Amino acid sequence: MTTAEHLDDKHFLGLAIDQARIGWEEGGVPIGAALVTNDGEVLAVGRNRRVQLGSAIRHGETDCIERAGRLPASVYRASVLYTTLSPCFMCAGTAVLYDIPRIVVGENRTFEASESWLRSRGVVVDVLDDPTCKQLMDRMLDERAEIWAEDIGEEA
Amino acid sequence: MTTAEHLDDKHFLGLAIDQARIGWEEGGVPIGAALVTNDGEVLAVGRNRRVQLGSAIRHGETDCIERAGRLPASVYRASVLYTTLSPCFMCAGTAVLYDIPRIVVGENRTFEASESWLRSRGVVVDVLDDPTCKQLMDRMLDERAEIWAEDIGEEA
Repeated sequence: MTTAEHLDDKHFLGLAIDQARIGWEEGGVPIGAALVTNDGEVLAVGRNRRVQLGSAIRHGETDCIERAGRLPASVYRASVLYTTLSPCFMCAGTAVLYDIPRIVVGENRTFEASESWLRSRGVVVDVLDDPTCKQLMDRMLDERAEIWAEDIGEEA
Repeated sequence: MTTAEHLDDKHFLGLAIDQARIGWEEGGVPIGAALVTNDGEVLAVGRNRRVQLGSAIRHGETDCIERAGRLPASVYRASVLYTTLSPCFMCAGTAVLYDIPRIVVGENRTFEASESWLRSRGVVVDVLDDPTCKQLMDRMLDERAEIWAEDIGEEA
């Protein structure tokens, strides 16, 4: 198995940011994700589709994993999950279910819940503190605060 | 807010078992779920649809929550999640995201991963040790072992 250390994290996070931007333009929650093998093959990209599909489970990460389709365990175990925002427990739990060994997070200033738990489960979590990801969420909190509260199970 | 202590757990687990049976007949993984308010209103039922939809994220519990649609936080927080099998970390994380306070589990002899974590997060987990739920999974492991391995992110 190759390691993922050579992957261009900024490039693959950029694919997730593209998805987040599309989601915002669709009227949704601007969070995107990409699932990439350790060899640099993009298995899928995805974005939060709460608004677009009326979905309670299509966060950026879960939408991405859904779009990757049914995969053998060995594929997940040799992949990296890129996400523009630090994962909620649903998405963190999905990564743990499939033994995804590394998650690259765009930013965790807006929201952070699962990182210490993920690390306690052996998942490598690298936070890039990307200003574009933060700007996308700042606008979300300003303009669509009620949808954001709903998305993380909080009262508006 | 009413409490859920008066709910007829056997009855609502029965709805989840009905879903598991349908899933088996469809060629899928026989795990079902029901989301029920503390007042006894069934918000949704669901079943594992890995095979039926080619889905990596439609476990019994997540399918049920998806079918319940977009809900305010207050609804999840006054509900009970019934599931025929002890939840994986994806489904457990979904319950934690939405602050579902109680999960009733049909059986945990076939699979158990998240119960101690759920309890550490304040979720009440009640296991009914139901023989029908166990029989459904025994047949699954006998006849569709590869799909079951895939469903929990393990090598076949």
